[in-house]
Formats: sequence, structure tokens, C-alpha cells
Amino acid sequence: MEKIVMLRHGDGGKHTNLLIRDIFYKHFHNDILVNSLDASIFEVNQERLAFTTDSFVVKPLVFPGGDIGKLAVSGTINDLVTAGARPLYLSCSFIIEEGFDMKLLEKIAASMGETCRKAGVKIITGDTKVVEKGAVDGVFINTSGIGVVQAAYQPKAIQEGDQIIITGGIAQHGTTISVERYGIKVEGNIKSDCGPLNHIFEKLQPYMGSIKLMKDPTRGGLATALNEILEVSGSEIQLLEKAIPIAGEVKSINELLGLDPLYHACEGRMIIVVDKQKAGEILEEVRRCEDCEDAAIIGSFAPTGLSPKVVMETVIGGRRIVGSLEGNMLPRIC
Amino acid sequence: MEKIVMLRHGDGGKHTNLLIRDIFYKHFHNDILVNSLDASIFEVNQERLAFTTDSFVVKPLVFPGGDIGKLAVSGTINDLVTAGARPLYLSCSFIIEEGFDMKLLEKIAASMGETCRKAGVKIITGDTKVVEKGAVDGVFINTSGIGVVQAAYQPKAIQEGDQIIITGGIAQHGTTISVERYGIKVEGNIKSDCGPLNHIFEKLQPYMGSIKLMKDPTRGGLATALNEILEVSGSEIQLLEKAIPIAGEVKSINELLGLDPLYHACEGRMIIVVDKQKAGEILEEVRRCEDCEDAAIIGSFAPTGLSPKVVMETVIGGRRIVGSLEGNMLPRIC
Repeated sequence: MEKIVMLRHGDGGKHTNLLIRDIFYKHFHNDILVNSLDASIFEVNQERLAFTTDSFVVKPLVFPGGDIGKLAVSGTINDLVTAGARPLYLSCSFIIEEGFDMKLLEKIAASMGETCRKAGVKIITGDTKVVEKGAVDGVFINTSGIGVVQAAYQPKAIQEGDQIIITGGIAQHGTTISVERYGIKVEGNIKSDCGPLNHIFEKLQPYMGSIKLMKDPTRGGLATALNEILEVSGSEIQLLEKAIPIAGEVKSINELLGLDPLYHACEGRMIIVVDKQKAGEILEEVRRCEDCEDAAIIGSFAPTGLSPKVVMETVIGGRRIVGSLEGNMLPRIC
Repeated sequence: MEKIVMLRHGDGGKHTNLLIRDIFYKHFHNDILVNSLDASIFEVNQERLAFTTDSFVVKPLVFPGGDIGKLAVSGTINDLVTAGARPLYLSCSFIIEEGFDMKLLEKIAASMGETCRKAGVKIITGDTKVVEKGAVDGVFINTSGIGVVQAAYQPKAIQEGDQIIITGGIAQHGTTISVERYGIKVEGNIKSDCGPLNHIFEKLQPYMGSIKLMKDPTRGGLATALNEILEVSGSEIQLLEKAIPIAGEVKSINELLGLDPLYHACEGRMIIVVDKQKAGEILEEVRRCEDCEDAAIIGSFAPTGLSPKVVMETVIGGRRIVGSLEGNMLPRIC
């Protein structure tokens, strides 16, 4: 273990997982925590509820396609969906720097309110802290969320042939933030995909028996999320590069910046693992959802017995092993 | 409304309430939110649950009697208790500054784990963000909490003669932080009262029918908390200064600093409003709880018809109206 916390401990990849395991799991140890992914599930009065939390530190606070408020509401809603839960209630806690522009604060709050109404969830409790100038960079927001579990995904039942759907073009959020941070002049209409995804969850209710898993590829991107799925499924994922939806502009910018879009955060996309027999039908259903017209089947699970890794067939016909995020991507992406 | 956010918007007093009303309630508006106090109550499958959130930004991170971790766990547990709920589960989200000492992080996590075990609650979900040096001052922690509502307090049934109990000496947390921040050399054993209070809640279960309200006097102190109770009860509170438990050292330091202990945060005390007939019995029960030997009845509700204000009979026999916190107390007390 390093002696100090480094930026990479927050990148959502290997180092984050080490920090969580070696410090937080060690001292908070309990069954629910260590068995949970992006949200935890507990039971009250025979009802299964999901509980999740996320702090948002994105920079800049406002970006094409959204702002920290929209992101904070969407991110927590989406984590509940990954637990098979219908999101119901959010909490919201602001840490604000002294001197922060009140109009911008109101704009962020309005954006949160609007995103909540669109998603049909309510912020029912909150907290506000103000710290002296320099003690926080602008505003950080924590949202925690509660939902009612509707679907029992069966990640352990993932088997050969199961198909992997992504609900839209990848890397849009991460690329948008990079463009803003590096101050690159870009022609065209690049914007974050950030948004709540519970409408997809509702639309897919009739298919829940055929859905093995949902996971949103946020920090660490598609590559890291697929590697986390491996840890549960234990079998090889075969990815088809040419099937992965990615906007032309997103691709070009990442080539320019020398960044790999597979590792860029999405904030409004879901990975859905489904039975082979129902994959086509589910894909059609997803494509009918708002902002999901580019949804695609991007890969499948190989026969068991192969070691658990993500192998991508590249556009030029090669094979590339795609690992978890290890290097330094951009900090403060979400 | 001011054009920028000021430190006083975070002091837990009038300005915080204005900010919440004019910005957050406006945009997040829903029945549960606007009717809630420190925690919100919602129903799932005929079970009433409480939900609360708090971000902790205290400076220094470690202080006599506790640290930011103990404070974060205790504060959220105590907010659930004020909603009549038995705390069950917490979330925990860290925002950490790059370069933060890993050993100190582990010390804070260990303190959280220990406080959880003592209180019988579990941290079941979490999040970790790391931001670049200078973007946050050390570490900030959000804890959100869920509990099962056990008691339906009846604040609207508060009536003439109802007694007000405080579970121990006031102003210890706020004074301890002031001493640390101003770097005052103090003889004696001044330390924060910070700690979880659900053991008192459990002990008082047989008396729940006689308890009208519980409220923890954190930011803004006893004075502000009592004024918030007025908003619900609508009748005058008569406070007896000589009955308010306060350690001699705490009193002296505040005289030295020119600060009023009535406005200093407690982080391990509860205000309990009880029926007159049961007040003595409940007080005895409270005094038998850990760290509650100084619990006392400090006042009562006057006949209805008087305007809702807090009036204190001072030690020299005068009458003083005690308002909500309006001025600037120390920021980052919790």
C-alpha cells in the first residue's frame, strides 16, 4: 500500500479497488458490503431495497450535455438500476465554497429538479455545508439513493453464448470532459451522454427473466466495467470492436488526444447481459427507448473453461486483450 | 438573496434555512422533502423507513474525543433517531485530496468501523473520489443512513407543561473545535461529546408514548434547535439557565473567547420533549445511559397563546429571549 493517496486511487480502476479492499472493507467489514457492487441490497419487511451513494466532483461544473447536478441525480439513479431496483428516493448533500455564484448554484439545483421529474424520483432529504474559500473547488454534491428491487439479475448464471448489449455510443461523457479540460476547439456536436436510465429498466420489465446483469460503464469506461463483470461470471468475454457504437467525432478526438475510448466514462449508458435467444428482441426494445437508437450487441460470453478475460477482435482482424483501467485517465470525470 | 454563497449559509441557522428554502425546496419540491426535519420518512410495504444524509467537513480532522469518521457515523445515526427510527444501514462516501496520508485515512476508517460496531449499524455501500491537491481540504465524508421507524413522535401534540430534557452537558463539541482552531492552550480535559445516541433511543422504548420529540442540537447549538422546535410546536419555551448542564471548563473557555455556549454544536446530545407526568422517570432512565449522568430537565412549554419564542430565566433572575443563530459562529464545526 502506498503511503499517500494518489489520484489513481480515485480512477475507478485497479487502484481504487485496492484502496477499498485494504482500508474500507477491512474496517467496515460486513456481508452486505463485501457482496455488493455499485449498490447494496437489504431486506425490510419482506421487501428488498437497494441503497447506493456517490459523490460528484466533476470539473467543469457545467459541460455540453449536462452539469454536476444532472450527473449527480443520473449517476445514483443508474446505480440503483444496476441493482435491479426501481429508483424511488434520493438524498442530496452540497459542499459549497464560500463565494460561489448563487445563480450557478440555482442552475445546478434546477437541473437536479428537472432530472428528478423526468425520472420520476424525489429528493426527500438533504444537507448543506459551506466551507471557506479554497477548501473545496466550487461545489461537490453527494447523492444517495433508495430503490425497490424489482429484478433479481443472475450474474452467476451467465453462460456461453450470452450476449452483451450496450445501450448507445460509448465514451461521450469522458471525451466531452476531456475536450473541456484541455480547452480543445472542436467542430460538431460532441456532448455528454449523462442522463437517468430507469426508463430503459421500465421498458425491459417483461424481459427481466432473460436479463442476467446490468452495469453502467462509468469511471474506467466500458473496458473496466466488462472486467468487473468477469469477476462475477468467471468466463471469457469476446468483444467485437466494429460492433461497438462510437460517434465519429468521439473517435477522432480520442485519436487526436491519444486516449482509448474504451476507458472513457459513459454516464448515460448501460451494459446489459442477456440470454442469446432473447438478445435480438431485447435489443429492438432498447433501441425504441429515448437516446438509444445506437444500441448494439457488442460481444458475447465464450465457452467456459477459458480464462476470464476480455478479448476484443479488432477492426483489422487482430485479437487484443482488454484489461481494467490501470494508467491515469483524467481525474474528476464525475 | 445574496449573489454569492457566504459562510453563514452553512452555519445551520437562519441563513442556511433561507438558502434551503429559496433554492433547494424551490427546485426539488415534493411533500416528503418540505415536511421533513433532519431525516425524511417514507413507506415501503407498510414499513415506515427514515432516510437522512450529512456531509462532514470538520477541521481539524482529529480532535479530542473523536475525529471526522466518528462524527460522520454518529451524526447520521443521531439524525435517524430524531426521526424516531432505529438506525440500520449507512452509506459512506469519501472525497480525498491527492497526497493525503494513508495512515490517517485508515485511522479515520477504523474509527468509523468502531463507532458502527458500538452502535450496531452497518456501512453497506460506499464511494471514493480523489481530487487533485488543493481541490479539497484533506478529506470530506458523506454518510447517508436508513432506519426503521419505531416511534411516532407527536411534535404537534406538544402542550403546556411538557418538559425539555437534555441528555448531557452542552457545547462540548463546538468548544473543543474552537480551542483546536484558535490554538488555545487549555488545562483540563475538554473533549467533544461526539458519539452515537441510539442506545438512549433503545433504552427509552418503553416510554415512547410519552415522548413528543427528539432533536439533536448540532450546528447552531441548543438555542437554534429549540427555535426550530418552536416552529412545529407554536408555543413558548421557558428555559432555566441554571438547569442547563455545562462543564466548568466549557463555560470558562467560552467566556474567554466571548462565545455563547447556547450556540455551540453538540454532537452527542439529544433534546427530548416529554409529558410532564413522565418527565422524572424518563430523566432517571436517561441518566442511567452511558455518558448521560449530567442529563437534566432544562425547561418546559408555557401555556398556549404566548408568542412562540424561547425565553430563558438567567442565573441572575432576568429574562432573555434566545433566538436562532444569526451571526457567524465557527465554520466547519462538523
